[in-house]
Amino acid sequence: MLVNGKPFTTIWPGADGASVEIIDQTRLPHRFEVVTIRDSGTAARAIKEMWVRGAPLIGVTAAYGVALAMRGDPSDAGLAGVCAALAATRPTAVNLQWALAAMQGRLAPLAPGARAAAAFEAAGQMARDDIALCEAIGAHGLGLIETIAARKPAGAPVNILTHCNAGWLATVDWGTATAPIYKAHDAGLDVHVFVDETRPRNQGAFLTSWELGHHGVPHTVVVDNAGGHLMQHGEVDLVIVGTDRTTACGDVCNKIGTYLKALAAKDNDVPFYVAAPSPSIDFALSDGVRDIPIEIRAEEEVTHIAGLAADGKAARVRIVPEGAAALNPAFDVTPARFVTGLITERGVIAASREALAKAFPERAGGLLTEPSH
Amino acid sequence: MLVNGKPFTTIWPGADGASVEIIDQTRLPHRFEVVTIRDSGTAARAIKEMWVRGAPLIGVTAAYGVALAMRGDPSDAGLAGVCAALAATRPTAVNLQWALAAMQGRLAPLAPGARAAAAFEAAGQMARDDIALCEAIGAHGLGLIETIAARKPAGAPVNILTHCNAGWLATVDWGTATAPIYKAHDAGLDVHVFVDETRPRNQGAFLTSWELGHHGVPHTVVVDNAGGHLMQHGEVDLVIVGTDRTTACGDVCNKIGTYLKALAAKDNDVPFYVAAPSPSIDFALSDGVRDIPIEIRAEEEVTHIAGLAADGKAARVRIVPEGAAALNPAFDVTPARFVTGLITERGVIAASREALAKAFPERAGGLLTEPSH
Repeated sequence: MLVNGKPFTTIWPGADGASVEIIDQTRLPHRFEVVTIRDSGTAARAIKEMWVRGAPLIGVTAAYGVALAMRGDPSDAGLAGVCAALAATRPTAVNLQWALAAMQGRLAPLAPGARAAAAFEAAGQMARDDIALCEAIGAHGLGLIETIAARKPAGAPVNILTHCNAGWLATVDWGTATAPIYKAHDAGLDVHVFVDETRPRNQGAFLTSWELGHHGVPHTVVVDNAGGHLMQHGEVDLVIVGTDRTTACGDVCNKIGTYLKALAAKDNDVPFYVAAPSPSIDFALSDGVRDIPIEIRAEEEVTHIAGLAADGKAARVRIVPEGAAALNPAFDVTPARFVTGLITERGVIAASREALAKAFPERAGGLLTEPSH
Repeated sequence: MLVNGKPFTTIWPGADGASVEIIDQTRLPHRFEVVTIRDSGTAARAIKEMWVRGAPLIGVTAAYGVALAMRGDPSDAGLAGVCAALAATRPTAVNLQWALAAMQGRLAPLAPGARAAAAFEAAGQMARDDIALCEAIGAHGLGLIETIAARKPAGAPVNILTHCNAGWLATVDWGTATAPIYKAHDAGLDVHVFVDETRPRNQGAFLTSWELGHHGVPHTVVVDNAGGHLMQHGEVDLVIVGTDRTTACGDVCNKIGTYLKALAAKDNDVPFYVAAPSPSIDFALSDGVRDIPIEIRAEEEVTHIAGLAADGKAARVRIVPEGAAALNPAFDVTPARFVTGLITERGVIAASREALAKAFPERAGGLLTEPSH
């Protein structure tokens, strides 16, 4: 997608063949900085300190981290060592573990001298696969937007509400929830996006707003409280959100607050779609509210907030009285009955056990073999 | 209610009989400062710059402003002049206009020399009336909490979620939504409050958390996104919110985001009560979503936030990328079908035209004669 008028992805190999470049997302939205990573230790730090974020991007960064290590010590011990080090950066990230297992499986059979080149190639392929997956979601979601656009009066934009950042910054390119939006905008459709701020980490205000702005997509930031009111007054034609984990029957675990928007969409007959790449589907789970453990994150994310002070410097302020307790559940679960449809890479399907099993028969019957996206 | 262990109201006459004292709410929660107001110009500034806020408190402050002016120039021209000046501070505040009209009605028939003393007495009575009204709401709401407490296992607190600040800081004492909570806490019931942060102005995190903390009521601040998740998991026994305007059929206009909590309460069978003093009821309105105009406030409330920097100084930071648009609707409307009951000063009643007309027959039949609370 575009940044300052120039196409970017979130990660790409350096021209020297011995590095990889990433966008330091901790600096966004106030500063755009590209960081060159030349060794696996820095790749580990980029994951741990969230210079990169989003399941697919973390996986690809780890794969490049392995590739960088193979340039120095491509021995079996070197391969095992770098994989262990990278796996420890975010131990609960399923994609990270999956990407590292895939790299080990690909490289272990090779002679050490052949491993570096093969690793760069495998990491690049992983990135291209993710781009293709997001593009497919974009193509299928575009159809939904086109249908709504055809019903709108001339000159009226299609208003889409989204929550958090399921944008290209969370993937390699296109994003998941944003892919249909970028496809529609690039196709010349008149789309406008209401961007939920997404407290407490403000990924909507910080990241989604930034990426839509750079790509030229008209958008408006609203507080998380506003969506229900907007839907009551016909200001939202369509909701599209991402998913961190989707159950076999279509329950959706996504950023905290998603469920409230789904309730409002239902009450106001607004279609509520979830961009759900198949790696997000966990066929071993069914009742999401009952079965998905919700991560409780640090109180500080609620009690403090970072922004840009009047002097142009980054600053962090306390916004809860000293001594008050805070609770910070990071995700919630939207039951399938509130989901109009899942936009997968194989098409738009119902959020139901039957539709999911039909669309992904090779996974629905067997064991869980793919990671959460 | 208590501040640093000492009972306070939001406004009280000075011991010298020639002043009135208020809490400067713009400094909360990080600093507690009492300001002595000695003239009507400062009273006007206190209203305009929101040192005081909340409909009842604004009205009482204006009444004291009139009283202060009467000490200097109690002539008819003086009375008309101070009322006009105070009315202009927040032209759309119904309570303010009502309080000034009441003061003019009370003072105009009197000889100028008698006006100052009568004005202080009338302002004091207005404050006492508001306290009595809030206490009555507290007493009726206490019954709801007692009923829930009786059903809970021993040692388990009654968990109450509230949104925004309908606390004693918005009234003279007790608050509206908080009155039942303070009554229950003071009666020794084990209550715990989930305090919605309430973006964009953060009155929950800034004010409700501060006042509950000083009065010793256990509470936890959560982002506005969290309430649905908490209700899905049985963490909320009861929701109590305030109202800015209640229609004749029980629709409730309150701080933006209230509607989303009502939807979640309904979906999870959590009782959703609205503390609705009768002055908030507008019998001239019926369909709240259709008929109540929603104030759109400054974008800056969304794009910037104030807090306490690490150096202990107040600071303001930008939290939305430069150039991004923001939209800031300040209120939303919760349709009566989501309201379990209205806690009025005359008891807990259904949110319906019939119940409202029965509880307030003197108002339901006639013209609107009282202000919005």
